[in-house]
Amino acid sequence: MQRIVVLAGGIGGARFLRGLRSAAPDAEITVVGNTGDDIHLFGLKVCPDLDTVMYTLGGGIHEGQGWGRADETFTVKEELAAYGVGPEWFGLGDRDFATHIVRTQMIAAGYPLSAVTEALCARWQPGVRLLPMTDDRVETHVLIDDPEAQGEEGGRKAVHFQEYWVRLRASVDAHAVVPVGAETAKPAPGVLEAIAASDVVLFPPSNPVVSVGTILAVPGIREAIADAGVPVVGLSPIVGDAPVRGMADKVLSAVGVETTAAAVAAHYGSGLLDGWLVDTVDAGTVGAVEEAGIRCRAVPLMMSDEQATAEMAREALRLAEEVRA
Amino acid sequence: MQRIVVLAGGIGGARFLRGLRSAAPDAEITVVGNTGDDIHLFGLKVCPDLDTVMYTLGGGIHEGQGWGRADETFTVKEELAAYGVGPEWFGLGDRDFATHIVRTQMIAAGYPLSAVTEALCARWQPGVRLLPMTDDRVETHVLIDDPEAQGEEGGRKAVHFQEYWVRLRASVDAHAVVPVGAETAKPAPGVLEAIAASDVVLFPPSNPVVSVGTILAVPGIREAIADAGVPVVGLSPIVGDAPVRGMADKVLSAVGVETTAAAVAAHYGSGLLDGWLVDTVDAGTVGAVEEAGIRCRAVPLMMSDEQATAEMAREALRLAEEVRA
Repeated sequence: MQRIVVLAGGIGGARFLRGLRSAAPDAEITVVGNTGDDIHLFGLKVCPDLDTVMYTLGGGIHEGQGWGRADETFTVKEELAAYGVGPEWFGLGDRDFATHIVRTQMIAAGYPLSAVTEALCARWQPGVRLLPMTDDRVETHVLIDDPEAQGEEGGRKAVHFQEYWVRLRASVDAHAVVPVGAETAKPAPGVLEAIAASDVVLFPPSNPVVSVGTILAVPGIREAIADAGVPVVGLSPIVGDAPVRGMADKVLSAVGVETTAAAVAAHYGSGLLDGWLVDTVDAGTVGAVEEAGIRCRAVPLMMSDEQATAEMAREALRLAEEVRA
Repeated sequence: MQRIVVLAGGIGGARFLRGLRSAAPDAEITVVGNTGDDIHLFGLKVCPDLDTVMYTLGGGIHEGQGWGRADETFTVKEELAAYGVGPEWFGLGDRDFATHIVRTQMIAAGYPLSAVTEALCARWQPGVRLLPMTDDRVETHVLIDDPEAQGEEGGRKAVHFQEYWVRLRASVDAHAVVPVGAETAKPAPGVLEAIAASDVVLFPPSNPVVSVGTILAVPGIREAIADAGVPVVGLSPIVGDAPVRGMADKVLSAVGVETTAAAVAAHYGSGLLDGWLVDTVDAGTVGAVEEAGIRCRAVPLMMSDEQATAEMAREALRLAEEVRA
């Protein structure tokens, strides 16, 4: 039985995983989920990426939107607004609230996030083993200009990633992306073991900075991947010099990386990445990526439906076999 | 301006207060609310009596039911049940959840319950000053038979009042009612001051054991009422030897009090109570109550609508004036 480890962010990671599950139905898939975009809202612990993976694979996702629950209602949020309690920019629905209430209650009772995630998944049966990257608190902050502090020298301030992404819609420049707390975080139980026992490690077309990058920022995970001695294959989230979805260009430029498939591959680096899939429109960059020591193929990378996504997953597994051989 | 202090439980107290507000529109009404039936559910702090008063006076109550919100939905509860998280016997609706989320968040931030209640009332504008009896944790427990412990000697166990009242629907005998934590609780800020400055203190037709009795169990409150030197007038929750609503007979027998209007007056006692209103069907007991040193009148005591309730409040205020004179 093939053992696959996937480092996943939210929507892109979740959709890729649905294709991978379909492409490799007999594989044992372990997902290491990003928790850097976790946020406390209304006193509740919200884990957007873990939940997007769980809902998507468990059949509860709002398909059109890509996050949140299908058939969602917003009564609780309206009532909170009537109390003057925000933020209003984060769209928590009633069904979603239940997940956060259960999680917060379990954490208050002393369970680590990994145990909570396992308990939540007992309902959703995602067909993969979903692990948070860490049980410790890591919060991705984004450094932006602070218009109110524009004195003689100007000023900057750090905002929570969700504030940057959801409230500001990445409309202002990001000067830096900092996974606060990552340097002292420990990988969650099972993460290093799953990587060590894996046959292949995949980076889905998730955000390379704030999703996969944050997971790799937890000490021990990058090293475990390098030490595993198995093929590490990624899929470019950039197609034709633009993110397939989301606003990855903003956070890429914050870390000095161009918004191209080749630049993202170079950002991961040949020390970590063995293979890289770019979209057919980026076929012209295959040579440059391979020159940098990363095996590269150009294949269709639009996750338009589960079949197309499954084919992407098959291509990634094929490239992994090429690398292995 | 007349200053009225009312010790209130849930439904009965809330409905009486609506009548009182209508009967004495210019009065300054301070409500000391029972918090002994507060409960933590799903990690959230729920204050059923305070909320019933707040929703009833603020226009948000489910009129037919007497508790909970009008136009309520139950999505969160259904989702919690899908996670296998209970209890299912406590009917928290989506609108209601928002109140508990705000309250829990504020308490976690360090605000005492009295400050939280004031903040919640800023939305509901109940037209009275609503104070919890205490900011400390008091939990009314009920001692019942424990069928599972029926060994040689039989066994008993204590359950939370809500479990006794809502889950068991008071279907088993109560051997004792214990306001756990009351003996070390302090009256909330403003409670003793409001009583000392009052012109009259009213006991609405609330449960004399688990509502008014619990408030009186907070050290200092009974003494402040006695020391205030103002008329203290109550309205009987028992009409024709049965509770008007609820299952007060069960908890009255636990404290050795008969389910009659006269017995409840005697339970409060002439040291505390100056006047007592019984229903016209209990006119025959007026003499016995007066012999016990408590001025008594028989008037209609069914809170069938706001007008009838306002008339009850007027009768209570009239009796207070009689006592004063």
